[in-house]
Amino acid sequence: MDYEKRALEMHKKWRGKIEVSSRVPLESKEDLSIAYTPGVAAPCLEIEKDPSLSYEYTRRHNLVAVVTDGSAVLGLGDIGPEAGMPVMEGKCVLFKKFGDVDAFPLCIRSKDVDEIVNTVALLAGSFGGINLEDISAPRCFEIEKRLKERCDIPIFHDDQHGTAIVTMAALLNALKLVKKDIHEISVVTSGAGAAGIAIIKLLMAMGLEDVVMCDRHGAIYRGRDNLNEEKMEMAEISNRKMKKGSLETVIKGADVFIGVSAPGTVTEEMVHSMAREPILFPMANPTPEIMPDLAKKAGAAVVGTGRSDFPNQINNVLAFPGIFRGALDVRASDINDEMKIAAAHAIAGLIPEAELTPDYVIPSPFDERVAPAVAKAVAQAARKTNVNKI
Amino acid sequence: MDYEKRALEMHKKWRGKIEVSSRVPLESKEDLSIAYTPGVAAPCLEIEKDPSLSYEYTRRHNLVAVVTDGSAVLGLGDIGPEAGMPVMEGKCVLFKKFGDVDAFPLCIRSKDVDEIVNTVALLAGSFGGINLEDISAPRCFEIEKRLKERCDIPIFHDDQHGTAIVTMAALLNALKLVKKDIHEISVVTSGAGAAGIAIIKLLMAMGLEDVVMCDRHGAIYRGRDNLNEEKMEMAEISNRKMKKGSLETVIKGADVFIGVSAPGTVTEEMVHSMAREPILFPMANPTPEIMPDLAKKAGAAVVGTGRSDFPNQINNVLAFPGIFRGALDVRASDINDEMKIAAAHAIAGLIPEAELTPDYVIPSPFDERVAPAVAKAVAQAARKTNVNKI
Repeated sequence: MDYEKRALEMHKKWRGKIEVSSRVPLESKEDLSIAYTPGVAAPCLEIEKDPSLSYEYTRRHNLVAVVTDGSAVLGLGDIGPEAGMPVMEGKCVLFKKFGDVDAFPLCIRSKDVDEIVNTVALLAGSFGGINLEDISAPRCFEIEKRLKERCDIPIFHDDQHGTAIVTMAALLNALKLVKKDIHEISVVTSGAGAAGIAIIKLLMAMGLEDVVMCDRHGAIYRGRDNLNEEKMEMAEISNRKMKKGSLETVIKGADVFIGVSAPGTVTEEMVHSMAREPILFPMANPTPEIMPDLAKKAGAAVVGTGRSDFPNQINNVLAFPGIFRGALDVRASDINDEMKIAAAHAIAGLIPEAELTPDYVIPSPFDERVAPAVAKAVAQAARKTNVNKI
Repeated sequence: MDYEKRALEMHKKWRGKIEVSSRVPLESKEDLSIAYTPGVAAPCLEIEKDPSLSYEYTRRHNLVAVVTDGSAVLGLGDIGPEAGMPVMEGKCVLFKKFGDVDAFPLCIRSKDVDEIVNTVALLAGSFGGINLEDISAPRCFEIEKRLKERCDIPIFHDDQHGTAIVTMAALLNALKLVKKDIHEISVVTSGAGAAGIAIIKLLMAMGLEDVVMCDRHGAIYRGRDNLNEEKMEMAEISNRKMKKGSLETVIKGADVFIGVSAPGTVTEEMVHSMAREPILFPMANPTPEIMPDLAKKAGAAVVGTGRSDFPNQINNVLAFPGIFRGALDVRASDINDEMKIAAAHAIAGLIPEAELTPDYVIPSPFDERVAPAVAKAVAQAARKTNVNKI
């Protein structure tokens, strides 16, 4: 099917995928006097006395801003804030559909870290959470870090953490199938951008020890040339065996390949060179690092991609609606590692071990159990780590 | 009725007066592929080529941000951004109900003009218009002026211009009743804040010549002490006869009183001292400068207030939904004086001269003819003054 043509047609017909709806009756002077003046003064004055009552008397308790600068939209690159809007609106629709979260898109006309941070921080009183989206690395790291410091509401860069959570969920189940332990496996990545780094950090928080990240220059190791600040940090904490060389070299003997890079990066020969029953998540979009059928032919035990037309779609929609639902439900001030790990376990746990197969390690995006299970686990983890306010 | 208690109860029950709704189906992988990836890339790329297509492929064409810093909310003063939210949500509900405009509240945590201007300007690509709300004078003037310079979408401070438009509409009809001409009448105001100044500027743009504005120190005239920049500007263009003294002094012989100040400013004696068949719009909220029954007893021909429990309610809701509906319909880059005057005439014109009475110079907020009539007139005026983009 020609998605492009159909998507253009439908977007033209829809003229916007979201709208703002009223939740109150407004048919009489009486209604107007309650929802607006003079009655509205009463909740205003209550909130003035205690700003946290904004969560009781306004929509703030359920509102998330989906914020981008349009600098890294899908695989399209820096297309600008206005051009990023169809993706942001789509994200808002998914938030509502799967998490019953009211999400609103804000596209910022600046690439300047200070300006983006300031704009979002000044609006934090209007929202219950901030979902950063499609902001290019390395600015996305700095923006998220500074917003977490400045804001009293959860900040979550979905391209990093959403991807990390769902990848982790898929990996947890895949490891059960091949009977390997996360503490003992070796992982190699292709791609050391926002998503790649977040995935590895989360896996390491779960116990992964042996990991080599690769960028287009090959393995990242301490002291290598061409490393930005974030890669230098990864060089410090990963690749303990100081492996050097190309992806082709370092993938030899690896148990797991995680791709967040470019099509065609992985060959059948490289899959052959991996450990027994290798797991591959080639997630480059829309064309993976290696096509699933080729990877399987070359011996892969489990393959997951970003695509909906192959089994095991590693799709962020499995995480972000439930993550924010859970965070909002307990008015969390942060979305921390414990909450992310709880989300990954919740997603993975929806498939009983007896039902796991190489083509079914991760639930479908339309599995209605996912968001509630994630929300519950995230809320519990928030309580356990004391970031909940209710 | 105890509006306060009921409003608190209802706001607690509603938990937000607005929500974000989806306009698209999302039941299958197919739907997801059109509204989100991979299909969504197509409208993104079209908008990247021509950013004005954001009005075709996203909700921008119908989206207005309702922006405040919470510094002058209702008559409550500076209660802060979070506490201003119930009013902003109420405004958004009115936008939807009367103008079918999708309005979204943004409450900014800053009172700094630069920060507010920058925040709004950086978000201008996400909206089709900006409604500034409840920002205290004199910052509101500067903020509006600078945003008009920086943004390519209409900027409208409703407390100024909405009030001015509806006051003008009421005055146009009241003058018909008493058979006086705007070019020949004398007007006195109590209050020289944002609304007072906007009202007088608009009336002068329509032909009013003889006007004296008063603040708490009395008449504003060229060279007086205690004048801020805006009042100095008004001193230059109003009070040509250089009248001095208290409101009580300068109201003598006036045809029209316009109050945007404080309760009890006007006495029966002062009404007695005005010209024949005086028109009074004491609009202080919730308690007017003089109560309508007292004003009438003292000889007022027409009285209008801000209250819904007296005749002739001068309510901004008669203006802003239709103003933005009209501006959005022709993708206006500005809301200029011609558009405001057209709106006032449209509101006034809905009551045929034969139906005008002292208690009916302005339509009811629930008169469904108002917003469409205003929208049509505003769109026409935008075309006439070439600020329309479609």
